[in-house]
Amino acid sequence: MSAPRVAIHEVGPRDGLQIEAAIVPTELKIAWIETLLASRVDAIQLGSFVNPQRMPQMADTDRLFAHFNRHKPAQTILTALVLNEKGLERGFACGVEHFCMGASASETHSLKNTGAGTEESVARIVGMGKRAVAAGASVQVSVQSAFGCGFEGVVPASRVLDIIKRYADAGLTAMSLADTAGLAHPQQVEDLYGAIRALVPDAVLACHFHDTYGLALANCYAAFRAGVQSFEAAVGGLGGCPAARVQSGNTNTEELVRMMQMMGLRGDIVLEPLIEAASSIRNMLDCVAV
Amino acid sequence: MSAPRVAIHEVGPRDGLQIEAAIVPTELKIAWIETLLASRVDAIQLGSFVNPQRMPQMADTDRLFAHFNRHKPAQTILTALVLNEKGLERGFACGVEHFCMGASASETHSLKNTGAGTEESVARIVGMGKRAVAAGASVQVSVQSAFGCGFEGVVPASRVLDIIKRYADAGLTAMSLADTAGLAHPQQVEDLYGAIRALVPDAVLACHFHDTYGLALANCYAAFRAGVQSFEAAVGGLGGCPAARVQSGNTNTEELVRMMQMMGLRGDIVLEPLIEAASSIRNMLDCVAV
Repeated sequence: MSAPRVAIHEVGPRDGLQIEAAIVPTELKIAWIETLLASRVDAIQLGSFVNPQRMPQMADTDRLFAHFNRHKPAQTILTALVLNEKGLERGFACGVEHFCMGASASETHSLKNTGAGTEESVARIVGMGKRAVAAGASVQVSVQSAFGCGFEGVVPASRVLDIIKRYADAGLTAMSLADTAGLAHPQQVEDLYGAIRALVPDAVLACHFHDTYGLALANCYAAFRAGVQSFEAAVGGLGGCPAARVQSGNTNTEELVRMMQMMGLRGDIVLEPLIEAASSIRNMLDCVAV
Repeated sequence: MSAPRVAIHEVGPRDGLQIEAAIVPTELKIAWIETLLASRVDAIQLGSFVNPQRMPQMADTDRLFAHFNRHKPAQTILTALVLNEKGLERGFACGVEHFCMGASASETHSLKNTGAGTEESVARIVGMGKRAVAAGASVQVSVQSAFGCGFEGVVPASRVLDIIKRYADAGLTAMSLADTAGLAHPQQVEDLYGAIRALVPDAVLACHFHDTYGLALANCYAAFRAGVQSFEAAVGGLGGCPAARVQSGNTNTEELVRMMQMMGLRGDIVLEPLIEAASSIRNMLDCVAV
């Protein structure tokens, strides 16, 4: 059996920086992202197209795409998170090739994060996803708070599967589950991805864990076992969602890549730039501390 | 299907303290172990019967057994590590009910840790194990450096399986694999335990991981998947082997128990005393710092 292909999606420039009080100047971000690109990870999420008044850390996402669309290695996909139609328009204007978008399975988290409940959010995301695909972009749809919610506690798997079904019915089969509050445990991860695989056999599955209880890597391994192909992580374990509770940093990219490499996978990814980027971003954040 | 039974074996008083420069006074150890007992974990390794000149941190192991043989809850097993016949004699004199003993699959580690190579060590352990069983004690035999060695690098699975076969042929079927240097990855863990299970179907399997690359919990989950029933860990992730290289602390007991409890297992273990013990031992080590 040939080794399964796993992809690493670095989300540090988005999910890593959005929670920081400090705003990293665009020039520093560019230098940092260049280091990330040197690692040859498969995808880097440059930012999100959200209201710059609400999230000034992401206000330069358009500028980052303008720069990196001209300066990136061919093998790396640049991705952006969008929450609404307005963000999608900005993404189109920037020539974004791969959009990430999602809805929360927790009603409370959904309302706090987007102002809309789950039902309204899913409908919005399905519409946006279809539009992005029609425009020639690739799309990954996600279910946030898929493994539990800092506000609501348990999130029933049926709520997650209902959303997944809506996505699949719309032809959106690249799907990510996000453990927004870091409440997932590995058995749950295997069970939930297994249920999704049974429901949508042709799904291309991604995962996004937070390390609240030190289980991010265990959950990544469980996801790997369940056939997940894309792993979202942030160097240095940066990040967290500003509208979640009981959240902590993302899966640490350099630890994740090392685990994969120990398992004989992705020897083509260069670890040193990831370790360097984990270190340099801390210096940058210190330098621009508010 | 009923939930599988998993046992937690707290090894902090032995593997946690043996590497510390500070020597914790017996009275403080007793207070600390009482806190550990309050958690209702299945087993606690009180110490090791080794040369007190070489390892003064463990010199009071006899006194600890003398105390706790009279003051322990019925459900908790007290265990001791022994390296040689002399230690076994001391253990018999203390009325030890459960002995842990092992040999290293790495020739270099074996020589540094015990002065004898793997072959000689295995023969010695088999003899000691049979003697302890004949004396009415229970015995767990282990293979150290089972997943790699800080000195030698890769340790072939065949070396581990050869030792396992020797143990099984001697009727010693309670077996632990120790990742002494913290080099295991979860796929390797599943593969190696799977191979052992195929070789010795009635083996009762234990695991002992170190967290060098942050994979201790991922490896525990992999071991759980592979049918491992007993998990060795130290509160606060204390410890390490003084004769290993690239080692770091043990699997963190309170994180391990929380993971098991998140998976619906071992709700009977009380987490708070473990967290308290992880904190109090740091204070004790600070107070007696050399």
